[in-house]
Parts: sequence; C-alpha cells; structure tokens
Amino acid sequence: MNDSELRTGEVAVDLPRQTDAALYFIGTIRTPWKTRQECPKRGSPDGPICSIVLDERWRQGLTGIAGHKRIQVLYWMNRARRDLVLQTPFQRPTRGTFALRSPVRPNPIASSLVDLVSVEGATLQVRGLDCLDGTPLLDLKPEHGAHEGA
Amino acid sequence: MNDSELRTGEVAVDLPRQTDAALYFIGTIRTPWKTRQECPKRGSPDGPICSIVLDERWRQGLTGIAGHKRIQVLYWMNRARRDLVLQTPFQRPTRGTFALRSPVRPNPIASSLVDLVSVEGATLQVRGLDCLDGTPLLDLKPEHGAHEGA
Repeated sequence: MNDSELRTGEVAVDLPRQTDAALYFIGTIRTPWKTRQECPKRGSPDGPICSIVLDERWRQGLTGIAGHKRIQVLYWMNRARRDLVLQTPFQRPTRGTFALRSPVRPNPIASSLVDLVSVEGATLQVRGLDCLDGTPLLDLKPEHGAHEGA
Repeated sequence: MNDSELRTGEVAVDLPRQTDAALYFIGTIRTPWKTRQECPKRGSPDGPICSIVLDERWRQGLTGIAGHKRIQVLYWMNRARRDLVLQTPFQRPTRGTFALRSPVRPNPIASSLVDLVSVEGATLQVRGLDCLDGTPLLDLKPEHGAHEGA
C-alpha cells in the first residue's frame, strides 16, 4: 500500500529500519471465514465453533489446559499494514491506532478471549474468534486472573 | 540455558530453525522492579504507578486513548527461554506451557490489563503492571469489549 490509499485523516509513519525480535508461528486457526468481509466485527460466545490446530512440536504444552473454561488466544494478523498512527475505520471518526483494536498497528498481534469447548490431541475447539481462516497462532494462555495453582 | 537447568518434570523441545514474523519494540516500560525476584507475581490495581514511554515515532497513535480507563498492554519478556512445553513453577505442579501465564513460552508476549492514570506527551502512567524495569513495549489497545465508537 502507499499514501494514495490512505483514507481522510489517516497518517502513516516511516517504519523502523530494523526489527527487534522474532516470532514463531506455532499453529493455525481454522474458521468459517475466508475473506475479511465475511469476518464478524467481534467474536461472540454465540458464534460458531472454530478450531485451533497446534503444531505437533508444541503439543505437550497443552497439558492441563482443558481445566480452563476461558482462554486467551494471541494470533498474527498477517495481512495488515503496520505504519498507520491515525486511522479512519469505515463510517467512524479518525482515531489513534492505540485507541483502536484494529488489525492495523505496528505489531499486528490480536488478542481474543474465547470459550474452550474441547481439546483433542493438538486441536482445540473454541467459540468467540473472529479471524480469517488460516490465521497464524502465536500463543494460548489461561484467561487473565484465572487460578493457576490447581 | 541447557537441559541440566530443567527442574523436575520439565520438558524442552527443539525450537524451529526459522522464525516466521518480526516485531518492532515501540517503547519502554518503566517500573520500580530491577530484578525478577523483586517483581510482584501478578499486577494489581493497588500497585505503584508505572510509566509506559512510547517512542516518538508512534506518538500520534495515542490520540483518543485518554478516553479509556482500562487498557491492554502487550510487552516482550525478553529474558525468558522459549523451548519448554512442560514447566514446573516454584512450589507448584508441572503444567503445560499453555496452561500457565509464565514468561517461558514459544513467543514470550505478555498481556496485562491496566488502569490508565494519565497521558502526557508520549508517556502513559498506569497501575497494574508487574514486569521488570526496561521491558520492551509491543502494543497498547483499549480493553476487550470497550466501546470504540465514541
């Protein structure tokens, strides 16, 4: 993309020349949505069951996760531009990037809280996601404040 | 670290040969805690005020953030090893990495919800963090489910 694709009020900055840390994609998220237009704006616990397929390498890391009803899912919004500081979502006012949960941000890491429905092998079934099919997975954690000591 | 530093029950895997995506550090978190031993186990809204100092490049991205009482902070736990799938926290049972919020995980991205106290220039004052002084910042977002349309 280039500046000609900016909407009214949007501002892009030059990205830093270097990156500072690197990520591993640890699995893949499977959802019913193949295009961004189809995706719900926000995940809902009434939404369809989606699958999170963890790479086999990390499978043992799921030990004990079935005891949690709600988990936090971090994933990489790999299609989003990273250089906007002011953005104008469709039919909404211009806002700073950090005052929005838009995919467009310097580090396009999404964070969703989902209901954990089942765990079978390296696959989790969850409700509450809103991302594209094939989205790369970064992390799974028990929900903030969940009791971890049990 | 190497395998001889594993605690009872812990399992390490070979990390992938390549990484898949890269991050920019966009600022620095200032806290009273200089060593991991000093850090509270979990951030509290009664805890001390900490500062989040955003790099000037991204400053306009804060536009409108002051309207949010609670924000989500993503940061990089740059001292943590990344190869454990089973881990044994001090005086607790062995668990899978994804059933814990430990810093030790394939992608050491921490997510905290904090109370926003003030915004001045590119510096935010917040309560509720528990990380080391100097921790690199990855992202700021309004809390999940916050109303973004105002």
